[in-house]
Amino acid sequence: MTAAETIAAIRADARFAKATETLAAEHDRTVQDLITLTEIPAPPFNEEKRAAAYLEMLRAHGLEEVEQDEIGNVMGIRRGFGNGDMLVVAAHLDTVFPAGTDVRVKREGTKLMAPGIGDDTWSLAVNLAYLRALDAAGIRTRHDILFVGDVGEEGLGDLRGVRHLFDKGRHRGRIRAFLTVDSPQVEQIVSGGVGSRRYRVTFRGPGGHSYAAFGLVNPMYAMAECARGLATVDVPKSPPTTHCVSVVSGGTSINAIANAVTIEVDLRSASAAELEKLDRRFLQIVDEAVAAENAARSTRAGVITAELARVGDRPAGETPAGTPIRDIAAAAVAAEGYKPHFEFSSTDANVPMSLGIPALKIGAGGRGGRAHSLDEWLDVEPTEVLRGMRTSLATILAVAGMEGIPG
Amino acid sequence: MTAAETIAAIRADARFAKATETLAAEHDRTVQDLITLTEIPAPPFNEEKRAAAYLEMLRAHGLEEVEQDEIGNVMGIRRGFGNGDMLVVAAHLDTVFPAGTDVRVKREGTKLMAPGIGDDTWSLAVNLAYLRALDAAGIRTRHDILFVGDVGEEGLGDLRGVRHLFDKGRHRGRIRAFLTVDSPQVEQIVSGGVGSRRYRVTFRGPGGHSYAAFGLVNPMYAMAECARGLATVDVPKSPPTTHCVSVVSGGTSINAIANAVTIEVDLRSASAAELEKLDRRFLQIVDEAVAAENAARSTRAGVITAELARVGDRPAGETPAGTPIRDIAAAAVAAEGYKPHFEFSSTDANVPMSLGIPALKIGAGGRGGRAHSLDEWLDVEPTEVLRGMRTSLATILAVAGMEGIPG
Repeated sequence: MTAAETIAAIRADARFAKATETLAAEHDRTVQDLITLTEIPAPPFNEEKRAAAYLEMLRAHGLEEVEQDEIGNVMGIRRGFGNGDMLVVAAHLDTVFPAGTDVRVKREGTKLMAPGIGDDTWSLAVNLAYLRALDAAGIRTRHDILFVGDVGEEGLGDLRGVRHLFDKGRHRGRIRAFLTVDSPQVEQIVSGGVGSRRYRVTFRGPGGHSYAAFGLVNPMYAMAECARGLATVDVPKSPPTTHCVSVVSGGTSINAIANAVTIEVDLRSASAAELEKLDRRFLQIVDEAVAAENAARSTRAGVITAELARVGDRPAGETPAGTPIRDIAAAAVAAEGYKPHFEFSSTDANVPMSLGIPALKIGAGGRGGRAHSLDEWLDVEPTEVLRGMRTSLATILAVAGMEGIPG
Repeated sequence: MTAAETIAAIRADARFAKATETLAAEHDRTVQDLITLTEIPAPPFNEEKRAAAYLEMLRAHGLEEVEQDEIGNVMGIRRGFGNGDMLVVAAHLDTVFPAGTDVRVKREGTKLMAPGIGDDTWSLAVNLAYLRALDAAGIRTRHDILFVGDVGEEGLGDLRGVRHLFDKGRHRGRIRAFLTVDSPQVEQIVSGGVGSRRYRVTFRGPGGHSYAAFGLVNPMYAMAECARGLATVDVPKSPPTTHCVSVVSGGTSINAIANAVTIEVDLRSASAAELEKLDRRFLQIVDEAVAAENAARSTRAGVITAELARVGDRPAGETPAGTPIRDIAAAAVAAEGYKPHFEFSSTDANVPMSLGIPALKIGAGGRGGRAHSLDEWLDVEPTEVLRGMRTSLATILAVAGMEGIPG
């Protein structure tokens, strides 16, 4: 059976109809869960309260082995009838918003507004709705499904929740596929994980008076050499690979040689090998820039040094064309009349992609916008929301192996 | 007569002895004037209150044509018996300290502590002491002496007070020599005026996402090219000429191409011609750096531009060896047993030096230190102070042409 045929068979099944009826009937409950979760702040590195609430919700939905792991992820298993192979269905607990942000939900008709409401709190609520729908319809799957609310997806969180799941999590050997439900839009399927390495580099030197100490090494010029060096590094267009010196600061007074100049650097690639190559080249460039400045001017009062801090490290990866999970997701999206797009981005799916485990980011349904801004919004108008929820439910069932449907 | 002979003749004269006795007798009054003036704040660009007080002091000392000019300098003339040629004896009113600085004078024995006390408030008080001493001794000079308390010597004040005196002041055509009494140490004679040009350069571009907009021009790299370009400019060791990229800032986020990056640049030379050459080269480098970045990456979202602000402009100049005023000052210093040093610095004397008018910075007498810091101090122990005051009084009299002493 082709992926399209599998999706068609699932959508034609009476149990799927029952499940989607349940999603519709439970719409208000799902929106209420969304509001409850959105109004529990989950700043970066501070997801505990929301994690605790979600843990209880997973438990209340009848999952097995409900637990919180060492890094802070919460999860539980919906047991399959197969050999214990596992599909992860995840959504991330954390938002980009710092502690103290007003996270109360405002409502105008079907439009809800609050920081983090669509990215990714909505998916947490939708995954619970899927559980109720599957149970109401008596749907069983071959794979165990591990439902996860994970920590550390955003920014400096650096994917630490899902990284832990695959590095040290007790289920790691059994995970055969990974779907992260992230943001509403279902037609945007992320199949490429853009990896990144981020550095803060501080060039230090002895400083001195701009006139009296003229001729001493200047960390400004080591920084400039480094920035120019990176600027000229050739990178492939495909897989997309990029570099950027983004932020700079240093020096205290117009009549003084700076003691320290700091840059922040962002390196990215959709290819792990290209990212590694770029990273190595950048570290070389830093060393060369320091050496060049120490050779160009006097070191009698001290030398230039560079202090590197890696402030970000997200693995690159891809679920390549031809992987069945991609065809399934595209077929599910197309079956609802959406036009599927495969995209590169940086999501929790980066981690399994980097390990060669089939993984995608899929959508939770509905329309939303202004993610990462205080104006973030989500429209929970039921027709559009249910259309999107049906889409991803079909994907999940096809990947997990719906009982009675040939895969 | 040599300069040394002139100085010796002055020092041997009974009137000079009477003048120095008056300096000694008036010591407490001079210190009281110092304290009064120090405790009137005179922040950069805000010298009005101290100027008003000093204007009244000049008037009380019997000067003619006491006035404040358009730029804020206060001054008055001690008339000579000659043809109206003029010597300026100046001290600067401004300090480096911002409004709100505690300028109350603390005293430990003969040591007085307060911001600005030595640089240059002491000289304001000493110049008044000279007036009382000259009058008490009945000393007349060939030149008119214009006593000036000037504004804008420090930092971004950019010598605007003395610049105005020579650009637009009503006496400018008559000034034949210029002595600025600045800081206590008399042995440090400044005969070279280090000129400077200071720039704030902001490189601007369209910005964009570090990944999605990769390939667009980045103002960071134009800045780096400019900094590297200046770093490699060869400058002569003599006359001393220097350049420095001192301060940098720009960018907002590690995942964004900066919209703007700003550097502050300090260019200096003891030679006006070298400074002009360096300045022109720097402006070329800015243009080249902008052009290079616009050629190196895509300008489809906008081009890199550079916005230049000249934030400092002090003319270079020198009162060269062989100029009589130098020999006079050195002889006066040596006559008191000090070892004269000729130095390069940036003082009010830069302006007349740049115009070819004989000019020096001389000292007010005494020991002090920590200028430009909140711990600034001045020791008014009478023996050392009087020795220094005698030194500069002899210089002033020799330059102005003391009646009855062959020049």
